[in-house]
Order: sequence, then C-alpha cells, then structure tokens
Amino acid sequence: MPISPRIHHDRLLGRLDTFNRIGALPGGGNCRLALSDEDRAGRDLLVRWMREAGLAVTIDAIGNIIGVRDGRDDGPAVMFGSHIDTVGTGGRYDGLYGVLAGLETCEALNDAGYATRRPLALVAFTNEEGSRFPPYAMGSLVYVGGLALDDAYSIRGIDGATVGEELQRIGYVGNARPGSITPHAYLELHIEQGPVLEDEALVIGAVEGITGLSWTEVTITGRAAHAGTTPMHLRRDAACAASEIALFVRRVAREMGGYQKGTVGRIELYPNLVNVVAERAVMTVDLRNTDEGLLREAERQLAGFLEGLAAQEHLSITTRSLARFEPISFPPEIVSLVETTARELGLSCRRLPSGAGHDAQMMARLCPAGMIFVPSVGGLSHNVREHTAPKHLEAGAAVLLHAVLRLSE
Amino acid sequence: MPISPRIHHDRLLGRLDTFNRIGALPGGGNCRLALSDEDRAGRDLLVRWMREAGLAVTIDAIGNIIGVRDGRDDGPAVMFGSHIDTVGTGGRYDGLYGVLAGLETCEALNDAGYATRRPLALVAFTNEEGSRFPPYAMGSLVYVGGLALDDAYSIRGIDGATVGEELQRIGYVGNARPGSITPHAYLELHIEQGPVLEDEALVIGAVEGITGLSWTEVTITGRAAHAGTTPMHLRRDAACAASEIALFVRRVAREMGGYQKGTVGRIELYPNLVNVVAERAVMTVDLRNTDEGLLREAERQLAGFLEGLAAQEHLSITTRSLARFEPISFPPEIVSLVETTARELGLSCRRLPSGAGHDAQMMARLCPAGMIFVPSVGGLSHNVREHTAPKHLEAGAAVLLHAVLRLSE
Repeated sequence: MPISPRIHHDRLLGRLDTFNRIGALPGGGNCRLALSDEDRAGRDLLVRWMREAGLAVTIDAIGNIIGVRDGRDDGPAVMFGSHIDTVGTGGRYDGLYGVLAGLETCEALNDAGYATRRPLALVAFTNEEGSRFPPYAMGSLVYVGGLALDDAYSIRGIDGATVGEELQRIGYVGNARPGSITPHAYLELHIEQGPVLEDEALVIGAVEGITGLSWTEVTITGRAAHAGTTPMHLRRDAACAASEIALFVRRVAREMGGYQKGTVGRIELYPNLVNVVAERAVMTVDLRNTDEGLLREAERQLAGFLEGLAAQEHLSITTRSLARFEPISFPPEIVSLVETTARELGLSCRRLPSGAGHDAQMMARLCPAGMIFVPSVGGLSHNVREHTAPKHLEAGAAVLLHAVLRLSE
Repeated sequence: MPISPRIHHDRLLGRLDTFNRIGALPGGGNCRLALSDEDRAGRDLLVRWMREAGLAVTIDAIGNIIGVRDGRDDGPAVMFGSHIDTVGTGGRYDGLYGVLAGLETCEALNDAGYATRRPLALVAFTNEEGSRFPPYAMGSLVYVGGLALDDAYSIRGIDGATVGEELQRIGYVGNARPGSITPHAYLELHIEQGPVLEDEALVIGAVEGITGLSWTEVTITGRAAHAGTTPMHLRRDAACAASEIALFVRRVAREMGGYQKGTVGRIELYPNLVNVVAERAVMTVDLRNTDEGLLREAERQLAGFLEGLAAQEHLSITTRSLARFEPISFPPEIVSLVETTARELGLSCRRLPSGAGHDAQMMARLCPAGMIFVPSVGGLSHNVREHTAPKHLEAGAAVLLHAVLRLSE
C-alpha cells in the first residue's frame, strides 16, 4: 500500500539554500535579474533538478521552463509554479519558493509512488519581476497571448540589451510554442510580501484575486523664485503642490478604506536647491484597488484634485499613464479549495487579495487560477531582508501538494 | 584737465553678454555652480579682464579674487564687488552684475585718468550661492574669519565632492590669506531679486540691512514597503512626512506674515521608486526674517512640529543646521551715502531691507558695509528669466561709481 505523499522539509530547505548561492549578494539576498548570467545558472540548475525528478522538460520560445509529470490519463495538466528571477536587491523566496515547492510536490509524489489522474506541469515563467525588462510577468503574459512574441523580443532593458538578444545569449529560446498547454487549472504558491498574515498570526492566505493597478506620472510646473525675496503670496511653488498631492493620495486611500492603496514613492524637484522655490516637480502616483469601480473612483478623485490644485496655485499640472491593469478575481472554487486544504491540514487560514502582481494574474485569462500565500516577516519584500519561517515554508508547500492532488483527480 | 568719470553703457552690457555665454542654459539663464568647470571658466575670464584694466590680482586660499587699483595714498582700500557663481537655474545678473559694474567703475576711472586717494579693491567672492556647498556667502564668511579655512575645505557638496578638492581641481587655491585687506568700507551693487522697487517704479534701493536666515536639513527615516501590499495604517511613509513638513513651513510663514519667509526647495526620497513606500527623505527648510526674535519663533514652531510629527507617524526625524545668520543692519552713514548719491544723480530711491543674503552681510563684520539695489522685473530671481532693464543696470553702476568716489576721498 502506497504511503501518503508528504513534503520533505529538509529537501525543500536544502534546495532553497543551494539555489540561492546563485546570484547571492554580499550582505544577504539575491540578484538574478531576468536573462542575466545568474538567471541562466539558475535555469540550468532547475532543469537538471526537474529531469532528476523525472519530469519531461520543455522550453518555450519566450524561455518559460515547463516540466511535465505524466498522469494516469491524458488531458489538460494541472499547472503550478512561479518564477526564479529577482529584482536587483531581491530576497530568497520571492518566486523561487513557489517553483521549488512545486518541484518538492513532484518529489513527494515520486517518494510515495503516487500517480495522479491528470498530468502535472511545473513551470518557471520568464521575467516576472520586470525590473530589467518591462512589463512585469512577461513570460506568463506571452504564454496567455497578451503580448506577441516578436514584441516581447524587441523590448529593450534598462541596460540597453533586448529580450530577444539576451534570451538567445543565455540559450533559452526554446522550440515549444508559448501557451501550447492549456492547463486544467493553475496554482501559484508565493510569499505574501505584505504584513497581513503575520499581523494576524495566520499561516496560509487563500488569495481571492489580484488588485487593479493605476500608475500615473504627474508633472507640476510652477515658477522658480528666490526663497528670501519672493513674497509668500506671489509664489507658484511646485514642491508645495507635490506635497499637497502626496497627502491627498494618502487621504483618498484612507478615506476610501477597504483595499484602496495610494502611494507617492517618487518625487523629483527642479532645481532642488535649498534657496530656490521649486519650479517643477515630477512625481508618481500608485493607486490600487481590488474593485475596478472603486479604482476608477480613486482615479477620478485624483484628476479632480489636480485640476483644482492647478487653478488654485496658478500652476500647470500634466499627467501620463505609466501602467493600468484591471483587478482580477480568482474563481471561488479555487479559493475554497485552498482554504479547505489548509483547514484539513490544521493550518490557520484567511482569504485576502494580493496587492502585488503575479504570473497567476496573467494565467487567470487562460484557465481557473489561484494562489496560496505564506507569511513574510515584517511584511518585507523586494528587500534583501525578506524572510519566511521554515515551518511556514513547509506549511505552504503542503497546501500546494494537497491542493494539486485534489485538482489532479 | 581730467574728464569726469562716467559709466560706459555699451562696455558694461557687452561684458555681461560675453560673460554670460559661460554656463548659458539652452532656454536662457545660466548655471555656474560654485567650483564647477563653468565657475572656473568665469574666473579665468574675470582675472583676464581685471588685469587688462590694470588691476593687481591676487587669489586667496578660499578662491576669492581681488583686483587692486592703487590710490594716491596707501592705507585701507575701498572694496566693492559681489560674486560670479549662480544657482542651478540662475539668471544673468545675480552677483555678476555687481562684479562687472565694479570692473566698469575701475575702467571709468581709467578712461578719465582719475587717481583716487585711497586704493580700490574689486572682489569676486567664492561660492556666494551655497547651492552646491552650504553655507552661502562662504568666501566672504571665510574672509571675515567667520568660518575656518580647513572647515570650509572639508564641506561636502550635494554631489559628494568637497570644497577643498574642487577648489584644487579648478586651480583656485590662491596664496593670499583670506582677510589680508581690512577695507575702509565695502559696497555691493546687486539686483533686488524681489518686486518692491519695480512695484513703486523706483530705480535705486538703499539697503538698510539683511534678513536673518536659518537653513535646516531634515532627515526622515521611515520604513521601505511594497506599495501594493502594505496596508495604509502600517506605513511609515517618509514621503508623506516630508510633504507635511513642506506645507507646515509655508503655513508658518503665511500665518506669521510681515517679513517672515519659509521655503522647502529640496526633497530627496529613497529609494524613489513608483511602487515602494519611501524609506527615507532628506529635505531642506529655509526660514528668514528681518527680526531675530520672530525668526527664533519660526524655528521654535518648526522644531515643535517635527517632534509631534515623528511621534504621530512613528518615524525618526533628525535635523542639522546648514546655516544660521542673525539679521544685520548697515551703518546709517553708508545707507545715507547711497541715498544721497542716487538723489544727486537724479535717480529715484528708497530704503529697504534685503530678503536675500549677500556677501555684504559678512563684510559688515569687518568694516562699514552697504548695498545698492536696482529693480528686478517681476521680482524674479534664481530663475532663468531674471531681468533688469539696461537703463537700470547703467543707473546702478553710476551710483556705485560715485559712491566709491566719495568713499575713496
């Protein structure tokens, strides 16, 4: 009689350690920017481990790596995974954890001699971070047909190289057509990258959907003036206007409440000198909401505020959209499946939306998709101090394993 | 019989044009930040012109350039001049006008074959603006012994370089000891940089004194966080805190009224990215008042606000004084001399305080000092559109020439 499949804690953590030697930063954390030498080294190791686990590996034309484990039947595979690239000052778990826990899922089934009905497909998508080549989630976006292959190839990165050149250089232009497998379902395990689970001392997040996002660049043009001689009432101060906007963005998010977020993370003043009233400010506004109607309401309020501010302060204010994605909701049956699986494993769980973008956001266009979150210590991510407790890493992998088992029957 | 010395209008304006090709900005105005390559090019030209006008040029150890025209007697020189450095988006006249009108004064005396009793000393002080290296009026401050030479050398600018390194690099560490000449008097001609003379259709301002000034660098340390995943109430947002401070500074100045000014001209965020809550902000606060008691009151209010804000927003806020000068009054006899000279030349005139700091403020510690203002169109300064009508430029130079003649007898 076969033993019940279970996560091998030391194997999972050992592989995370081994893998994270690639692109390790001196003070901790990792840099494996998409299509860099470090990304290639990571890919090579992953492909080797996939083959050692008995998976049939294919690479597609955008470099997505897919390892298939046969099922008792043919038909659509249950797909799961994430990405192995990082931001420039990335942590040990963002992306990689979902891929290696997926590999551990396959290993656990191997250990147990367990054959699922549907095939399984472990995936590592190309360039999820978008730090080197925008947009983020490029591999999954191409996979679902949201970005043409040639358009992706011609995208130029922050260092001047193109996706096509770099994919060729590292030897990861595969033969498979992106999107050749339409999965039965897609499941992604990821660190939360926020503080909610830790604050509530919970282990598992059943992700309900991914927030919509609106990025706007705002340029304010006032009038440079001498800080000592220009009467206060004659000023057209771009720094004060930028400050009004930053506080308005926070106020809107606070007043709307719920899942509305509002952030001004970037402000640049010109000439940016102690004794000159600022002539110009360039700033960004990041608005997010899980509800498209509310996100539009936040955008509408911002536009109205900017118009009023320009008139009141005798300034010119212009805007430019940098990115706009509508929110998506994962199907209720996938959210319930994650929740039920966690509860059956005796793990505390809550539903929550993701405030960050993920490959699952793109895959949801193609098949029923969902995500599993585990806690991030201090809510830190995109930070070398990113951390998740080993017991939480094991718990998340167990939820992935058992949710995959249910989906594959 | 010698002709009466008079200003040569075309020579003065021609030299302003020629000089302003150095560091000219594409849309007008000038950038000759202190100790930059442009500053060096300006210094080289000025030294050449001084020598061609027969002045004996010395450079002192802080880079001040002094050109002496002998008098019939030895003894303390009548000194006049200003500075040639600009802010990052400077105009054509701030500083440079006073230096080139001083040169024109010497040329006018040469043309007339006129020998004054006392020697004359034309000066261009180093780094009056302080935009790159605080504090402002560094050259004159060192000259009067208000800042030790070694302390000045070690000051680090906004681009990381030190005063000592940059002075060496541009070749302007002179042999003369700063302050080697204690002048009989110091007179500085300058554009008003404010709207008062233009508003009252007057040509000459007899400056009564200089506003007190307090420059503070404020550093706010919050916590970097993901803009999509971090709940609004858990943020420690350095950008929002910086914005609160900028608006508070404006509010204090408006509420105090009178000669109180308040400006936040510089804000820098880290990491300054669209999707990261700012971890740190470094900003400057410029407070000014002609009344020392009121200036202290404004400083007190700022300190109280920062303390409350740090507690309320769970941030660390530290401050560092970049400059602090008490208001000064020029001796009544110098103010009267300017007024009388203007009236005798048939030029309309009023007394007024200066809201801007000037080298004359420092020189007032060493000798009787005073200033002559001419109108600024629209009150604009530290702005590429800074302008003064040619007839006003000529009128101011005439007042300088004749006031110097009186002081030199």
